[in-house]
Amino acid sequence: MTHKLLQIDFAFDGPWGGELAAALGGLAQDIAAEKGLAWKLWTENPAERRAGGIYLFDDDDARARYLEKHTARLAAFGVREIVARAFDVNAPLSALTRAPL
Amino acid sequence: MTHKLLQIDFAFDGPWGGELAAALGGLAQDIAAEKGLAWKLWTENPAERRAGGIYLFDDDDARARYLEKHTARLAAFGVREIVARAFDVNAPLSALTRAPL
Repeated sequence: MTHKLLQIDFAFDGPWGGELAAALGGLAQDIAAEKGLAWKLWTENPAERRAGGIYLFDDDDARARYLEKHTARLAAFGVREIVARAFDVNAPLSALTRAPL
Repeated sequence: MTHKLLQIDFAFDGPWGGELAAALGGLAQDIAAEKGLAWKLWTENPAERRAGGIYLFDDDDARARYLEKHTARLAAFGVREIVARAFDVNAPLSALTRAPL
């Protein structure tokens, strides 16, 4: 399988950690059910006031569909400075460094 | 454990895929032995001419040490436009979306 990665981060003023987890548990369950999503890792940096996620998708279509949906959702939340970058995964090198694919 | 994430990407002109894997297998084995590194996922985007990696470290010190070492190595290779961002991982939300921690 060709794995398709998406890295997203944006300006964010909190909440962080457990408080964020309590607020967004429902959203996380919705994202978990996203078709074609292998996993999402949730990222946060309180010092730099940024948050985001690293996503692994099964294919290009699933990634494109999610990016459009999530960008619209973030914009609806008033999120600014959204940086999204799409990458393929180099599987042989990632296997050598124990990446979870 | 508090997981510490690092996302790095930079301008890159190839090689890609299997050719890159053949060229950098030794480097990947060296990175795999990095103290405090849980895993590295190798990223590449031939269309946008960018490559990089997503890393998970055991702690802040391991991440800072690696970032300094890897940035110097990339600069020695002549790599330009290095973007590095450090994040904490929100473990409860990541668990809901099957992230490999």
